[in-house]
Amino acid sequence: MKNKPILRFGLPKGSLQDATIEKMAKAGYNIQVSSRSYVPYVDDAELEIRLIRAQEISRYVEHGYLDCGITGYDWIQENGSKVHEVGEFLFSKATRQPARWVLAVPENSPIKSVRDLEGKRIATEVVNLTKKYLRKNKVKAEVEFSWGATEVKAHELVDAIVEITETGSSLRANKLRIVDTLLYSTPRLIANTKSWQDNWKRQKIETMALLLKGALDAEAKVGLKMNIAQKDLDALLHSLPALRNPTISSLSQKGWVAVETIIDEHVVRELIPQLKAAGAEGIIEYPLNKVVY
Amino acid sequence: MKNKPILRFGLPKGSLQDATIEKMAKAGYNIQVSSRSYVPYVDDAELEIRLIRAQEISRYVEHGYLDCGITGYDWIQENGSKVHEVGEFLFSKATRQPARWVLAVPENSPIKSVRDLEGKRIATEVVNLTKKYLRKNKVKAEVEFSWGATEVKAHELVDAIVEITETGSSLRANKLRIVDTLLYSTPRLIANTKSWQDNWKRQKIETMALLLKGALDAEAKVGLKMNIAQKDLDALLHSLPALRNPTISSLSQKGWVAVETIIDEHVVRELIPQLKAAGAEGIIEYPLNKVVY
Amino acid sequence: MKNKPILRFGLPKGSLQDATIEKMAKAGYNIQVSSRSYVPYVDDAELEIRLIRAQEISRYVEHGYLDCGITGYDWIQENGSKVHEVGEFLFSKATRQPARWVLAVPENSPIKSVRDLEGKRIATEVVNLTKKYLRKNKVKAEVEFSWGATEVKAHELVDAIVEITETGSSLRANKLRIVDTLLYSTPRLIANTKSWQDNWKRQKIETMALLLKGALDAEAKVGLKMNIAQKDLDALLHSLPALRNPTISSLSQKGWVAVETIIDEHVVRELIPQLKAAGAEGIIEYPLNKVVY
Amino acid sequence: MKNKPILRFGLPKGSLQDATIEKMAKAGYNIQVSSRSYVPYVDDAELEIRLIRAQEISRYVEHGYLDCGITGYDWIQENGSKVHEVGEFLFSKATRQPARWVLAVPENSPIKSVRDLEGKRIATEVVNLTKKYLRKNKVKAEVEFSWGATEVKAHELVDAIVEITETGSSLRANKLRIVDTLLYSTPRLIANTKSWQDNWKRQKIETMALLLKGALDAEAKVGLKMNIAQKDLDALLHSLPALRNPTISSLSQKGWVAVETIIDEHVVRELIPQLKAAGAEGIIEYPLNKVVY
Amino acid sequence: MKNKPILRFGLPKGSLQDATIEKMAKAGYNIQVSSRSYVPYVDDAELEIRLIRAQEISRYVEHGYLDCGITGYDWIQENGSKVHEVGEFLFSKATRQPARWVLAVPENSPIKSVRDLEGKRIATEVVNLTKKYLRKNKVKAEVEFSWGATEVKAHELVDAIVEITETGSSLRANKLRIVDTLLYSTPRLIANTKSWQDNWKRQKIETMALLLKGALDAEAKVGLKMNIAQKDLDALLHSLPALRNPTISSLSQKGWVAVETIIDEHVVRELIPQLKAAGAEGIIEYPLNKVVY
Amino acid sequence: MKNKPILRFGLPKGSLQDATIEKMAKAGYNIQVSSRSYVPYVDDAELEIRLIRAQEISRYVEHGYLDCGITGYDWIQENGSKVHEVGEFLFSKATRQPARWVLAVPENSPIKSVRDLEGKRIATEVVNLTKKYLRKNKVKAEVEFSWGATEVKAHELVDAIVEITETGSSLRANKLRIVDTLLYSTPRLIANTKSWQDNWKRQKIETMALLLKGALDAEAKVGLKMNIAQKDLDALLHSLPALRNPTISSLSQKGWVAVETIIDEHVVRELIPQLKAAGAEGIIEYPLNKVVY
Repeated sequence: MKNKPILRFGLPKGSLQDATIEKMAKAGYNIQVSSRSYVPYVDDAELEIRLIRAQEISRYVEHGYLDCGITGYDWIQENGSKVHEVGEFLFSKATRQPARWVLAVPENSPIKSVRDLEGKRIATEVVNLTKKYLRKNKVKAEVEFSWGATEVKAHELVDAIVEITETGSSLRANKLRIVDTLLYSTPRLIANTKSWQDNWKRQKIETMALLLKGALDAEAKVGLKMNIAQKDLDALLHSLPALRNPTISSLSQKGWVAVETIIDEHVVRELIPQLKAAGAEGIIEYPLNKVVY
Repeated sequence: MKNKPILRFGLPKGSLQDATIEKMAKAGYNIQVSSRSYVPYVDDAELEIRLIRAQEISRYVEHGYLDCGITGYDWIQENGSKVHEVGEFLFSKATRQPARWVLAVPENSPIKSVRDLEGKRIATEVVNLTKKYLRKNKVKAEVEFSWGATEVKAHELVDAIVEITETGSSLRANKLRIVDTLLYSTPRLIANTKSWQDNWKRQKIETMALLLKGALDAEAKVGLKMNIAQKDLDALLHSLPALRNPTISSLSQKGWVAVETIIDEHVVRELIPQLKAAGAEGIIEYPLNKVVY
Repeated sequence: MKNKPILRFGLPKGSLQDATIEKMAKAGYNIQVSSRSYVPYVDDAELEIRLIRAQEISRYVEHGYLDCGITGYDWIQENGSKVHEVGEFLFSKATRQPARWVLAVPENSPIKSVRDLEGKRIATEVVNLTKKYLRKNKVKAEVEFSWGATEVKAHELVDAIVEITETGSSLRANKLRIVDTLLYSTPRLIANTKSWQDNWKRQKIETMALLLKGALDAEAKVGLKMNIAQKDLDALLHSLPALRNPTISSLSQKGWVAVETIIDEHVVRELIPQLKAAGAEGIIEYPLNKVVY
Repeated sequence: MKNKPILRFGLPKGSLQDATIEKMAKAGYNIQVSSRSYVPYVDDAELEIRLIRAQEISRYVEHGYLDCGITGYDWIQENGSKVHEVGEFLFSKATRQPARWVLAVPENSPIKSVRDLEGKRIATEVVNLTKKYLRKNKVKAEVEFSWGATEVKAHELVDAIVEITETGSSLRANKLRIVDTLLYSTPRLIANTKSWQDNWKRQKIETMALLLKGALDAEAKVGLKMNIAQKDLDALLHSLPALRNPTISSLSQKGWVAVETIIDEHVVRELIPQLKAAGAEGIIEYPLNKVVY
Repeated sequence: MKNKPILRFGLPKGSLQDATIEKMAKAGYNIQVSSRSYVPYVDDAELEIRLIRAQEISRYVEHGYLDCGITGYDWIQENGSKVHEVGEFLFSKATRQPARWVLAVPENSPIKSVRDLEGKRIATEVVNLTKKYLRKNKVKAEVEFSWGATEVKAHELVDAIVEITETGSSLRANKLRIVDTLLYSTPRLIANTKSWQDNWKRQKIETMALLLKGALDAEAKVGLKMNIAQKDLDALLHSLPALRNPTISSLSQKGWVAVETIIDEHVVRELIPQLKAAGAEGIIEYPLNKVVY
Repeated sequence: MKNKPILRFGLPKGSLQDATIEKMAKAGYNIQVSSRSYVPYVDDAELEIRLIRAQEISRYVEHGYLDCGITGYDWIQENGSKVHEVGEFLFSKATRQPARWVLAVPENSPIKSVRDLEGKRIATEVVNLTKKYLRKNKVKAEVEFSWGATEVKAHELVDAIVEITETGSSLRANKLRIVDTLLYSTPRLIANTKSWQDNWKRQKIETMALLLKGALDAEAKVGLKMNIAQKDLDALLHSLPALRNPTISSLSQKGWVAVETIIDEHVVRELIPQLKAAGAEGIIEYPLNKVVY
């Protein structure tokens, strides 16, 4: 009897773990992590999940211990891993921004640009990215690996830090000033180059990418439905390009139609007052699980 | 260059904080509270959020430190704040009841009505409301400010208390009896009177009120969709006025139509058996994010 | 004045409590448990909720202290309670499997089948079920009641255990091997036989069963909507029987229709790639609250 | 090579676990419980610790799976286990009272004595103790096993309960009245009868009992030291018999002596004012780790 | 039969609660707080404990609902309560400083002294203390009651705050500058003036004060014991006045004596190097439970 | 005015933080960590505390950002830091063992010695230590930095790991086998070489080392006091060398003496039965805060 094929899939352990498992469930893959076992349960017999720190996933995908995995672009670059990038995702619904690695110094530091780092000491978790950045800018400085709490060090232990931030508020709270951005980073689905050439594996990975993208897109979108008098419809559609390609259906009430569309959740707050002004009634917004174009 | 206009918005810190932030997210405003900074992040550059205790918000709106805020009707009254009330909301989906401030005494107390309070001592967090209530009833009694755990005091430290309750179960668990209700209180969106006269601010506040109301209404409502034979449709609509103004669309199956409407979630449990009895099939209920009429 | 009729309803306290209250809310009954009172609040004046351990509910339903209750099939059997079973439910969305009570032994135990238990000692929480199973298999063995942590005992305190498991992962983590399955168990809604003959109570219970089933079915299903060219519709419907009985509506765009249906959530991950291949566009998946056929 | 002898020692898992491990540490045996392993670490290579629920320990000591263990007198009796009792301890420093199993009923119940239970239903965790008690009192009543939360059941599910209590405050909080006491229970160190006949094991167990007793006695005692004028010494010792057999040493200051003794901690609060009145100065109280007479 | 006399004793609920209960246990009174009952258990049948917020205790002692209580000097003053002060304590072992209420402003505020407050707004929890302070300084300013999180308000809602601090680090972290100190506050044992005239109650209160003081003094002190050659003794005692009135006892080893004394714990770190330099050997420091002079 | 001299002292942030702060308090230095400030409070104005990860402390001591610090021997070696080692401590009272870095492989791995690692891959947090170990053994293998959860990797991601362990139980729980020990590591107090040449700093550091050692020694020791008949004294002292250099004092009871000594806590459990056998009575054991020879 031939063995059932298996896809070994690495997910980021730690701070991104809960978010990733939630996104996977939205994509249709239910994962249960047990404190008793290091292999999580997943309701797909063709998958084997491994939880590995985001920093290390690209390395194990490159070596083939994992067929594919989700990790940040930053760590793929830091490790210099040779892997196939299948897709890019945006996890944070709240900020809708990628994370970025920035060069930061105390608010009152004389350092104003990367040039001023010559001969200085920099603490960071991404030593390779930082060295590359310095080389590119032809600056010679000492880069030391920081095991965490990097922000605090900028005030007395080193001259500058390279640290990750999303909204910048943690840096501001630590009275640090951003000097430059080294790298924007988003979560990526990556595959081992050999696994990617295997037909079965590639199709399995592509399906997962499709569903995951569908689930993530759905987080940022909503369904919008409203009634409007037939006579106002053209004006409405003309003036509001955000309502692209809506479904129009006639209502039992003469002269009225129902308009339904899928739009970005964050424009709803500007759109609804305009819809009301254009004569729309009975506007409802409903949540989506997946959106696949 | 002119400054970008900013609306300063106060949200209640403490027990209502998580619920309020969740409602704001449903309205389309994503807020992130950080332990490191006293200014929460919000994904709208025209807003500045401040978290302030519900008891104090109306005071700071009145003085203009805040343009607007969400707080309870009780504290607006207790503080006697002069503010413009923009809208009223109901946060508690579970009980669908406003909170109320009640006069309560031990189960076996001889006090049966407000008249019996003459010469007694009353502990409460709302000293002004209580004094006003006593004046209105022409009763003279001592009112002392209670810093919390007021229910326990009714048994030996004072003769009666004025306390907030929703379902009354906490009072019953403390063997207290409700004598009278002083005030029903619901969350309100209030605005500083001067901010309300500024066109930009007023429009911004009104939009927020509209969206917040849309999100809260949506919590209490659901979408309902079902299939029914054309011949049974009239009887269905006639006998079930709750299905007001539904969307009717024809199905591919001859002689059948789809009926869709938005109704109060808490009537669904009575409605579904009736719909089935009236011949409806394939009934589905789906959640809503916002409902704007 | 006649008394308002009341239905006394037992829900399982403990590990199933939160899940059950969440399902009840989805069915339309909002329950609030207070640490101060042993009677939970429910927003239906005709219901009285009692939280009782799952092991005991069938006993109190049988004796008539409760009109009805939700408990596992396992404990109904263990207690040998004579009750009317109204409905069967499946709570766990993640695994979509009933729990089962299994006979388990250490991985390296010589015990290979129930026959090998002759003269051995077995620890279990379900003493009666285990004795019945042994009788049926004509095996004589000692059965002792275990107060918990049964898995650990199999390694040195007893020869075998009878324990509940869902995915088997906790048994594997304890290096135990499953020898046999005694019983599959799912949550049941049961009624006292006399309450079941009371018309008002029976109708009330049936309605709750209907809504609860509707809510649980909805957890495992989703709505799916897509656009497709009229010319590709027949091929789509023919090749994908999962899309049973869809609603077809015409779109404003000539030659295109919208297809909408309700399907099992766990087939979506296989279906979406096929739909895309069949020409479907703008596929969206949305969540459901209830599904009642 | 001969095997090193080992003593297998059962400690109560659950509510008593932390207290027991703390007492063992005071006796000189440091135990570390790991969430990863079911065998706790102990810094004595001759001991093997097992954590087992208090209800079950006596059974496993009787069968010889454990050489000895600590459990309550109540569960030894409930299980009817034949074991050797090595020593009795009192764990609760705060109340200095043994726990007791009592018969309790709602405050307003007509049941006034055990006689009134004839034909009633009683819920309890100690079914055997309760049946024995009823037999002794020649009362026939139904006894049912309760899985916990027994206090709540007394109000509507059964007529009476048999429940454990220390100060009675939990019963009072549930508005229950104590009718009778069935059994006082203290922690006991018990040994398997065969292990007790093994010289090495017996000596090991006796040493542990001695040290544990020394540690527990020390919790209830303190050292007391004071200076007093030689002329007042006799009066002091005569009038205060609590100061039994003190150590008297002379001080460098002429005419003064130091008095030192070990006394029960809970008499200190009465003794110190008397000592001051009798002329003692520089009174100090210090803690003890162990007291062995 | 005459009633047993009872002393009703109020302890501060909330942030000081655990510390106070721990100190009371050290004094010899073991208190157990139950979540089910508002009357804590205490192992002294002559005491009845009530947990009341520190802000309110002096008021209830003044009115006679409590015979005595522990609360801060600040709240006695704020309430203007007429009570008998029995004793003063220092709870914080770490900082050995009383708490103090200070006037604070943002670091870059132009306010440099109380004079600069004329016409300004001040937020505080101690409205009366602040008004009194302003009157004393002949400054007119608005004082408003703050429900908490006062530090944050100083930056935009008010001009200054009056807030409590111990080490000042929380103020510094909020970038506030201390302008003046209004009041130093320590925990006090206070008694109702009438209870104080009752002989039995007064003696009971005085004993508790004595023991509590003994326990608190003992926290700040340690026992010190060392051996020294007889010839070096005089030099040692002469040069180290901290070793006041030590006990000297002769050792079996000829020419050597043991020196023992009680000293402040916080001088030990300076003393031990000096003792070693003076020839002391085998220095040991041991903990104390109580010290009563 | 001259500046007050300051000693900047680094303590390990993270898993060792609480233990270190507790030991410092026992030594006499009370530290309070605030979530609001990155500079902890210490009750010694000559000290400035910094919390830095153990992995990094030696580096910052070497560079002079810190005058001294506490960190593990392992990280001093891993970093190759040039610092002055002032003292060595043992923190773990429970196990009385230093931690050690070991080479470990799955139980069933063919790897039996370091020789078998040729050409293999090893994951570890201590890359430099591991490379040095391989060089010393003339083995060529790939060493990769592991960000944590190293134990899990040994089963499929790498061939072996180098990991820290104290009792080995975590390795056993992960079914790993120890092949070799690379390094034993204990906490060390280290000083910057230049700070060590400053008289004031050196004396300050030496005093801290003395007190910290005194406190840690005291954790492993206890005071023991007993009475014995004069006639049995010689036999007692002769047969029990553990009672080295005791203090003997005569008692008021004729023919009896008191014997007092300081001994290792972990021998008490063997010693007490022997003391009783030798005629000792009234044996008490008491705790110590510091022991300085």
